[in-house]
Amino acid sequence: MEYFISIIINGNKVQVKAKKGANLLEILHSHSFDMASPCGGNGTCGKCKVKLKGAVAKPSGQELDLLGINAVKEGYRLACRVLVDSDIEVELDGREAEASILTAGKSRTVSLSPLVRKKNVKLDIPSLENQASDFERILSSLGDTVELNCIELVRKLPGTLRKSQFDITAVMYNNKMTAIENGNTQDTLYGIAVDIGTTTLVAYLYDICTGERVKVQSMLNPQKTFGADVLSRIDYTNGSDEARKEMNKTIINALNDIIHELTSENSIIPDNIYEMVFVGNTTMMHFLTDLPARYMAVSPFIPVVTALQIIDAGKLNLNINKGAIAAVYPCVSAYIGADTVAAVLSSGMYLDDRNCLLIDIGTNGEIVLGNNEKLYACSTAAGPAFEGANIKYGMGGIHGSIDTVSYDQGLEYTTIGGKKAEGICGSGLVDAVSVMLEQGVIDETGRIPDEDEIAQTALPLADRIIEEEGKGVFVIDKNKGIGITQKDIRELQNAKAAIAAGIRTLIKRSGIKMDDISRVYLAGGFGSHINVKSAVKIGLIPAQLEEKVESIGNAAGEGAIEGLLCAGMIDQAVDIARRIKYIELSGSPDFVDEYVNCMLF
Amino acid sequence: MEYFISIIINGNKVQVKAKKGANLLEILHSHSFDMASPCGGNGTCGKCKVKLKGAVAKPSGQELDLLGINAVKEGYRLACRVLVDSDIEVELDGREAEASILTAGKSRTVSLSPLVRKKNVKLDIPSLENQASDFERILSSLGDTVELNCIELVRKLPGTLRKSQFDITAVMYNNKMTAIENGNTQDTLYGIAVDIGTTTLVAYLYDICTGERVKVQSMLNPQKTFGADVLSRIDYTNGSDEARKEMNKTIINALNDIIHELTSENSIIPDNIYEMVFVGNTTMMHFLTDLPARYMAVSPFIPVVTALQIIDAGKLNLNINKGAIAAVYPCVSAYIGADTVAAVLSSGMYLDDRNCLLIDIGTNGEIVLGNNEKLYACSTAAGPAFEGANIKYGMGGIHGSIDTVSYDQGLEYTTIGGKKAEGICGSGLVDAVSVMLEQGVIDETGRIPDEDEIAQTALPLADRIIEEEGKGVFVIDKNKGIGITQKDIRELQNAKAAIAAGIRTLIKRSGIKMDDISRVYLAGGFGSHINVKSAVKIGLIPAQLEEKVESIGNAAGEGAIEGLLCAGMIDQAVDIARRIKYIELSGSPDFVDEYVNCMLF
Repeated sequence: MEYFISIIINGNKVQVKAKKGANLLEILHSHSFDMASPCGGNGTCGKCKVKLKGAVAKPSGQELDLLGINAVKEGYRLACRVLVDSDIEVELDGREAEASILTAGKSRTVSLSPLVRKKNVKLDIPSLENQASDFERILSSLGDTVELNCIELVRKLPGTLRKSQFDITAVMYNNKMTAIENGNTQDTLYGIAVDIGTTTLVAYLYDICTGERVKVQSMLNPQKTFGADVLSRIDYTNGSDEARKEMNKTIINALNDIIHELTSENSIIPDNIYEMVFVGNTTMMHFLTDLPARYMAVSPFIPVVTALQIIDAGKLNLNINKGAIAAVYPCVSAYIGADTVAAVLSSGMYLDDRNCLLIDIGTNGEIVLGNNEKLYACSTAAGPAFEGANIKYGMGGIHGSIDTVSYDQGLEYTTIGGKKAEGICGSGLVDAVSVMLEQGVIDETGRIPDEDEIAQTALPLADRIIEEEGKGVFVIDKNKGIGITQKDIRELQNAKAAIAAGIRTLIKRSGIKMDDISRVYLAGGFGSHINVKSAVKIGLIPAQLEEKVESIGNAAGEGAIEGLLCAGMIDQAVDIARRIKYIELSGSPDFVDEYVNCMLF
Repeated sequence: MEYFISIIINGNKVQVKAKKGANLLEILHSHSFDMASPCGGNGTCGKCKVKLKGAVAKPSGQELDLLGINAVKEGYRLACRVLVDSDIEVELDGREAEASILTAGKSRTVSLSPLVRKKNVKLDIPSLENQASDFERILSSLGDTVELNCIELVRKLPGTLRKSQFDITAVMYNNKMTAIENGNTQDTLYGIAVDIGTTTLVAYLYDICTGERVKVQSMLNPQKTFGADVLSRIDYTNGSDEARKEMNKTIINALNDIIHELTSENSIIPDNIYEMVFVGNTTMMHFLTDLPARYMAVSPFIPVVTALQIIDAGKLNLNINKGAIAAVYPCVSAYIGADTVAAVLSSGMYLDDRNCLLIDIGTNGEIVLGNNEKLYACSTAAGPAFEGANIKYGMGGIHGSIDTVSYDQGLEYTTIGGKKAEGICGSGLVDAVSVMLEQGVIDETGRIPDEDEIAQTALPLADRIIEEEGKGVFVIDKNKGIGITQKDIRELQNAKAAIAAGIRTLIKRSGIKMDDISRVYLAGGFGSHINVKSAVKIGLIPAQLEEKVESIGNAAGEGAIEGLLCAGMIDQAVDIARRIKYIELSGSPDFVDEYVNCMLF
C-alpha cells in the first residue's frame, strides 16, 4: 500500500510516494529534505517539527510536551513520530530545509540530490595483515553492495590507488562505481541538461555539488541539413545504416561543440562532467541514441523505445568523463516525446488537483490536459507556420524579425532587438492576422480582398493592401515590402486549426469540461512570445481560457534541469510518462470534424 | 535470519540457504528441483512429499490425512506445508526430481538452471490501438522489471521484431535482456566452462538446455612463450601496457581457437554460445580480463580484484554471441585462485561436517583444510618439479613419459600410452625416489652414493648407479640413459617440503588436528596420477592420512562446469571464496621451520 506525501516548502509543493507505516522523518531525509534531528529521531529534541494535514495516528505525549497543545491543535507534529497511514500534506519550515533546497524552475523547488554523487574514502594501506584486493579494499569503505561498472575502470584501480596513496574519490551512480579519482575531489562535479529541439539545441551547465548554473549555450540543430522537420529527417535515415549513423554523428558532434563552449570559457575540465540529462521529441531522442526511427514515420507510428534510458556516456561518444551517465528522459509515444514529459514535470500540473492544459507549439503542437490523477495528451501536425517557415516573409524569432503587430492610431510593429525589420516571426504573424480581423481587413474565411474591393471600403488599413500575382497582400513594413500573403493566412489557418482542434478533441476524449480548466500553460519559445489576446482572436486558444493562460518559457529545458539536480525528478518523469494516456488523432473522425470547424477564424 | 537446507537426491547432497519462514516447496522450485505440485501448493494433492529431518512445526491435519500416520512418523511431510524454522535436511524422491537433475561431477549432482536462459514470446502486432514501442511491447510479455542490457541490442529491436513477425526469443541474464533472436529458439543454448591453467587450458562445451556435454578440448597455454611460471609472466606484463595487452590477447586468441574447434566439428554456431565460465589461478584470471597483475608479484601480494566478475563477453573479445555473459569465478588472494575455489566447490568439502584436506599440486601447491564451518587455505611455491620441469629427464604427463616406477624382482616402469620412454613425469619421479628410499639407494638426506660407495654395498639396485660429472645418477631406462640425478632429488625435496610444510602449517594455524582429518582430496593432473604410497614414502603426504586419500581429477574444471549448469553453484563459489581464510606463508617463521624439517625424507 502506497500513499502520496505532498511536501510544501516556501509555498512550493513536491509530491513523493511512501509505503504504509513509513516514518515521515525518514521519508523527508530520503528525499534530501535536510530536517534537523539531533536526537536521531527519538522524539526528544523537537527539531523535526512539521505542519501536517491528513489522517495519521494521534500525537504522542512526547509531541504534546515538546510542541505544546496549541501547536498540536494547529496541526504541528514531530516528523519522527509520524507513521504514514494515508495521503498527507506536510508543510516544512523554509528556513529549516533551505540549506539543501534550491530553485530550479520559475515556480518550483527541487532538492539537490543528483543521480551521480561522489564519495571520498581513505583506504587502509595494503600489508601482509590486510591483503584485500584493490577492489575489495574499496568495497570495505564504500559498502559491499557496490558493483564494478566496467572492466576498464577496474583496470585503472591499481595505478590510481597507489598514485593517490589510497586516498581516492569514487563517483557513484546508485550502487555502481563509475569512476575513480586521485585524492579528495568531492566538491568537483558538473552536469549538463540538454533540450534537443528539431530546430534548436539548448544546453545548461550546472555545478551539481552546489546546484549553481554555470552557463547556458544554444545553437541551431545542424541536423536541419537533412530536412527541416522530423519526417524528412527520418526519411533520410531510412536510406542506409550509414545515413542513420550520420544523423547520430551530427547531433553528437554538435553536443561536443556545445560541451566545449560551455566548459572552455569557465575553465572546467570536461572530465569533471559526470552526468548529462536529455529531453527532446521522440525522434530527436532516437537520433541521439542512434536508434532506427523508421517505424515512427508510418502508421501505427511505433518508436523503438519510450522508456527512460540510462546509458554510459562513453557509448554515446560524448566528450565528457568516460564514466559519466547519460539519462535520456522517457517518451510517451512517437509524437509525445521526452520534451513534453519534461514540460509536464516542470509545470507541476501532474501534482495539481485542478485541471491544467499545457500547450507546446512548434512544428508539432503537443497538448496535455489533466491533473494529479489523470493526464491525456495528443500531438497535432501544426506545420512550421508558427516558426515562420512556409511563410513568405517568415523567419525564426531572431534579431530583426517582427514579433508584435498592433493597431491604435495606425499600424505599429516592433522587431526583436529593435533592428530594421527583415521578416516576421510566429508571434508577429499571429498579431498581424489578429489586427486584420479586428480591423475588418479579412473576415472569418480569411480571404484578403483585392485592391478594387478594398478601395470600395472605408477601412483605415485599406492603403496597406496591394496586389501581387493577382492576390491581395497586407503590407506591414512598407520600406521592405514585408507583408502577409493569402497563402500565409491559409498556412496559419491550418496551423491554428490543428492546435485548436487538438485542444477540443482532448477535452472531449478526457471528459474534462472546458470550464473546469483552471490553468493553461504555454510552453516553448513561441508560447513565451505570443500575445494571448491575438491567439484568442485568431481562434488558436479558446476564448473561455484567455484569463487562465500563463507562459512558462522553456518548460522542457526546466524539466531536464530538475532531473539533473534531483534524481527523484527523473523518477517523477518516468511516472508522468506512464500516467499520460496518449490520444492518437491520426484517422480520428472527431478530430477531422473539429479541424474543419476550426479553420474559420 | 537464514538457515541451511540440505537437499538429498539420489544419495547426493546440495545445500542451499533460505530465510526463516520461507516455504519449502517454493525453495525447492526456486532451485529448479522439479517437484510436482498440481494443487498449486495448497496441500491437497500430496505430490510434494519429502522426507525431512530437523525442527519444523508439527504436521497439519491435511498432511496426516494425505500421507498417513506411519509416513509422518518416518519424517514424511508435504513441502508446501513446511515453513523453514531451523537448519533442515530434505530427502527427495529421485524419480520425482530426476528430470531436471544431472550429474556434473563424479560425486555431485546439481540442478540445471544456468545463469543465462531463453524465453520465447509472441508479441501483439502493433496497431493504432496498441502503439507501445518495440521495447515496451517486449516488456509487456517478459515483465516490466526487464532491463535493456545495451543500446546495441535496442538498435536491433525494430528489424528483429518485424523480420520475425513479432515472434521472438529473448536471452535473459537475471532481469537483463542480453540478446534477441527470430522465432522460437528456446532449445538452442550452449555454454563453455574453461579451466585456464598456467600450463594447460581445458574447455568443456555443454548444451545448457539439456545439460549434456558436447565436447572437451584442451591445449597448451600459449602464454608459456612469456615464461613458464606466473611470476615471469607478470614480470613480462609489467614492461608496458602493450605487453600487458599482448598477454591478454594471447589467451583470448587461444580461447577463440578452442571455441572454433569445439563448435566447428559439431556444427554449432558460435553465436549460440551465450555463457562462458572461467576458473584458473588469480594471475590467469587477471590476464584473461586484462588487469595489471603487477602488485601480486611483490609483497604484500595484492590482486586488483578477487570478487566474482560478470562481464559482457563482447568486452573480452570472445568469438561467441555478443550478448553472452562471461562469469569469472572469485579468487581468495593472489595465490589462492578461482581454480582452488572451484575445486573446493566440486569436492563438496565446504558442505562436509567432517574435516577435509584438499591438495592441488602444480607449480604452486594450493592446500585447503576445513569443513562446512571453517575453511583455511595456503599456497606454497613448490616449484615445477612435479610437472617434470627443472628435472634433467623430466617432461609433462604426455605419451612416452615414465609415469610409474616400482620394484619387485627388479626395477619396473610404465610409460603413458605404453610408448618408448622419453623422459619422466611427476608421478614417475615420486615413484622412483620412493623406490630408491625403500631399497636403500638413498637415505633420509637424499644423497646418491657414488659408484665406489655403492660398489661396497650389496644393494639389489647397485648396478643402476652410474656417475656423471662426479655425481651419482640412478638410471631407470638403460637404453636411453633416463635417470634421476642428485639435483633432481634436491628439486623434489624442495617441492615436497613446500607442500608438506604447507599442510603442517595449515593444521597448526587452523587448530584442526591431523587425526581429525577424515578425507584428503588430491586435485589436478598430478594429483590424479600420483601413487599415494610413494607420496607418503617421500613425505609429501603425512603417513597418518594415507588411508584417507582420494583423487578427484580436474576438480577445478568440474567446479566450473557446475557453475555453468547451475547459477546457484556460482553463488556457492562466491560464498566459498568469502569463507576461506587465507594463511600467508611468506615470511611466516613457523612455515620456515616446518619447511626445513620436511626437507629430509
